[in-house]
Amino acid sequence: MNYRMIVYTVGRILLVEAALMSLPVIGALIYGDPTLLSFVITIVLLALVGVPATSKKPADARIYAKDGYVIVALSWILMSLFGAMPFVFSGFIPHFVDAYFETVSGFTTTGSTILRNIEGLPKSLLFWRSFTHWIGGMGILVFVIAILPKTESSSMHVMRAEVPGPTVGKLVTKLRASARILYGIYCVMSLTQILLLFAGGMPLYDSIVTTFATAGTGGYSVLNASIEGYHSLYSEMVIGVFMLLFGMNFNLYYMILIKQGKQVLKSKEMHCYLAIVAVSVVVTGVSLLNKYTVGDAFRYAFFQVSSIITTTGFSTADFNTWPTVARFVLVMLMFIGACAGSTGGGIKVSRVMILFKSAMREIRKAINPRSVETVKLDRRKVDESVVHSVVVFFAMYMLVTAASMLIVAIDGRDSVTTATSVIACIGNVGPGLGMVGPAGNYADFSVLSKLVLCFDMLAGRLELIPMLILFTPSTWSRK
Amino acid sequence: MNYRMIVYTVGRILLVEAALMSLPVIGALIYGDPTLLSFVITIVLLALVGVPATSKKPADARIYAKDGYVIVALSWILMSLFGAMPFVFSGFIPHFVDAYFETVSGFTTTGSTILRNIEGLPKSLLFWRSFTHWIGGMGILVFVIAILPKTESSSMHVMRAEVPGPTVGKLVTKLRASARILYGIYCVMSLTQILLLFAGGMPLYDSIVTTFATAGTGGYSVLNASIEGYHSLYSEMVIGVFMLLFGMNFNLYYMILIKQGKQVLKSKEMHCYLAIVAVSVVVTGVSLLNKYTVGDAFRYAFFQVSSIITTTGFSTADFNTWPTVARFVLVMLMFIGACAGSTGGGIKVSRVMILFKSAMREIRKAINPRSVETVKLDRRKVDESVVHSVVVFFAMYMLVTAASMLIVAIDGRDSVTTATSVIACIGNVGPGLGMVGPAGNYADFSVLSKLVLCFDMLAGRLELIPMLILFTPSTWSRK
Repeated sequence: MNYRMIVYTVGRILLVEAALMSLPVIGALIYGDPTLLSFVITIVLLALVGVPATSKKPADARIYAKDGYVIVALSWILMSLFGAMPFVFSGFIPHFVDAYFETVSGFTTTGSTILRNIEGLPKSLLFWRSFTHWIGGMGILVFVIAILPKTESSSMHVMRAEVPGPTVGKLVTKLRASARILYGIYCVMSLTQILLLFAGGMPLYDSIVTTFATAGTGGYSVLNASIEGYHSLYSEMVIGVFMLLFGMNFNLYYMILIKQGKQVLKSKEMHCYLAIVAVSVVVTGVSLLNKYTVGDAFRYAFFQVSSIITTTGFSTADFNTWPTVARFVLVMLMFIGACAGSTGGGIKVSRVMILFKSAMREIRKAINPRSVETVKLDRRKVDESVVHSVVVFFAMYMLVTAASMLIVAIDGRDSVTTATSVIACIGNVGPGLGMVGPAGNYADFSVLSKLVLCFDMLAGRLELIPMLILFTPSTWSRK
Repeated sequence: MNYRMIVYTVGRILLVEAALMSLPVIGALIYGDPTLLSFVITIVLLALVGVPATSKKPADARIYAKDGYVIVALSWILMSLFGAMPFVFSGFIPHFVDAYFETVSGFTTTGSTILRNIEGLPKSLLFWRSFTHWIGGMGILVFVIAILPKTESSSMHVMRAEVPGPTVGKLVTKLRASARILYGIYCVMSLTQILLLFAGGMPLYDSIVTTFATAGTGGYSVLNASIEGYHSLYSEMVIGVFMLLFGMNFNLYYMILIKQGKQVLKSKEMHCYLAIVAVSVVVTGVSLLNKYTVGDAFRYAFFQVSSIITTTGFSTADFNTWPTVARFVLVMLMFIGACAGSTGGGIKVSRVMILFKSAMREIRKAINPRSVETVKLDRRKVDESVVHSVVVFFAMYMLVTAASMLIVAIDGRDSVTTATSVIACIGNVGPGLGMVGPAGNYADFSVLSKLVLCFDMLAGRLELIPMLILFTPSTWSRK
């Protein structure tokens, strides 16, 4: 391992975090919040670590696969560690583990909160909280690529660890240029949403922070009642549609930019994603007809399905009180997640498609043992090694989920809370059911459970491998 | 497809069922039960179907993979259809779907019951109910092999569909001879358990039917309170140990018979199986210390862990009221299941081991992309196609589980009942949690849910493929 390069790169990322933290500093000045000093101290601490780490660029700038994974995992862990400090220093989240949970949840764009009264926090802190979603939103994808030493080969490996979903496709070519384009798309889409929300009457501050949480598919709101608190059909629809947009493969927007719009319409993953959304809205909506009027049933169903499949986690209703079938649909969506190459979490639609196709192929193989068949996606053959990796990824996802549930179960919460807290955290969704439902929070879990859930959020966001590598002894053996 | 051969083979299997049903007829005569006529009518109906179907042996006796799977699936479906008739004709289970559920649950050695008052049934019916466990116990493995036309090649394919678990190992050689040996082992072990239970003071009838349910890892008891009803530590221990024995790979007993006992001690699957049992007993036992005395805590923990991992489903305590961590341990065991080549259900320990090893290999591959590594079990390389099949099997298992949960959720039961009813049925365990816990039953589900759960029991017992093939349109296309 190239330890020097790891320290150097992580150091640069922490300096970027320091720079980004100047925004909430400005916010604290504007709103006259008592949090100013907390942010400044944190920035100083970040500089104290970041400056020496980056003082001298290592002569050997090569980064191998393992180093890339370690850099990614360490960056998220350390960014969250420093990002949590303003909450602790300002005294608004006194326990460090709680603040760490809240920040990991932010950077991983999960949106699980330990806050019982969100509205009790000053605006600059809530801004920082939502801003972590926006920063984390694109994954370190674009973020790290822009910072890492500018050699295609080294960026590649980090990209492999970072890109949500199994394929990067055309994005891989001309990495840095693409990175800037993606960054641009992300910013333009965010700006559009801010303007649309603001135009609909939402205060500017709320429009900005809500957009941060939508763009990152995070889900932190500045209201205790989440999006329900705005009582605005217009805002709901804007957010509902933008969640779906941020849950799509960013490759598609890139294609539109380079005028390959026809290709976009043929994307099988997008078809499948929209089909899942449509079916889920219908099933959920119908199940809610006993509870609400037809209009409200489908309004709530659309928003919640959009919020959960994109793993955002906003709510306009307490779906914890919904009928069993609606709750099960939502839990399944927590597993499925959004499209590969989006800011969403979960297993990803394309992976689920490959899983399903592999299963169908296995059945056909049993019928005709001599048949040789390939798995196809978008009319292109999916390499057998990718198919195998996807199926193993699913197994790993379920194994980590099962192991985490066993540990969280020690807390003795009810089964639904225990199971869905893990499902919602590893899928980067945010709210689950039971105690961690939209009306609840994660505050009452033990320190052990909170740390396990932090691990799950990071593991889920980073596509498992980087976090699992960090905890594999052989990674650290000097061979 | 060789339709004639399918009809012929299934016909022979139904005739065997008619022959086996003579035992409860004798029982009905002994106990003077009002069920005599119901059994006789069923035997006549079986003969009316079976005799014409087997009147002429088809000239073309070849059976291909697809035919083998179809035979296996149809046999279990039809055996259950006829097996359910005595319950309906006698009026003790008036609704056919209920009787069908009970019989599928019997032949698949699941042990899920729709009976609210088991003790209200006459002895001959309860005998038949438990006997279906014993018949199903060995899988159609031995059963079908003894009946099918005596050509090695045709038996092979049925065997592939039938053997619980991924590998058959040495059993495949000299199929028919091995089949008889397995059958012998099964009978001797059953006889031993009957004698041990009887020697401990359990009535002969109870000893026999309890052994039927243990040997098949089924779980039907003739008492409403299951094994708890005997209030006997001795019986509990005998049953607890025999459940574990019937959950082991029968290859191991065969090895002992041919004096290869040393090989047995090296079986990694057995080590893993016993390790899972040991850890689960400790965790469950410790979690129960608040509830029971130390002795009782570990007594209950041992029995329940043994009962659930072997997918038997007997109970000596209402584990539905146990702490969350104990409940989660049991649910995980429902997924894992017993060893390959045993009478138990679930995913199987060897498959879970391969899943875990594949995951570890994937992590190591990420660290060192150029490494080429094979998955090993018992120091032998596992073929890559087997590894892939196992991982895809897991994916299929979870996909079927998820889809079933969504349908059962329409019933509107609580989440725990909905989820665990499916998990317990596809894993052939029997009781789940909530409404379907040890103190509950499956009676209140809708007809749709009961049919879905029947499908799950059959799919789980037959290792998914045969049931999925039956519902794949291309199976029935004439190409």
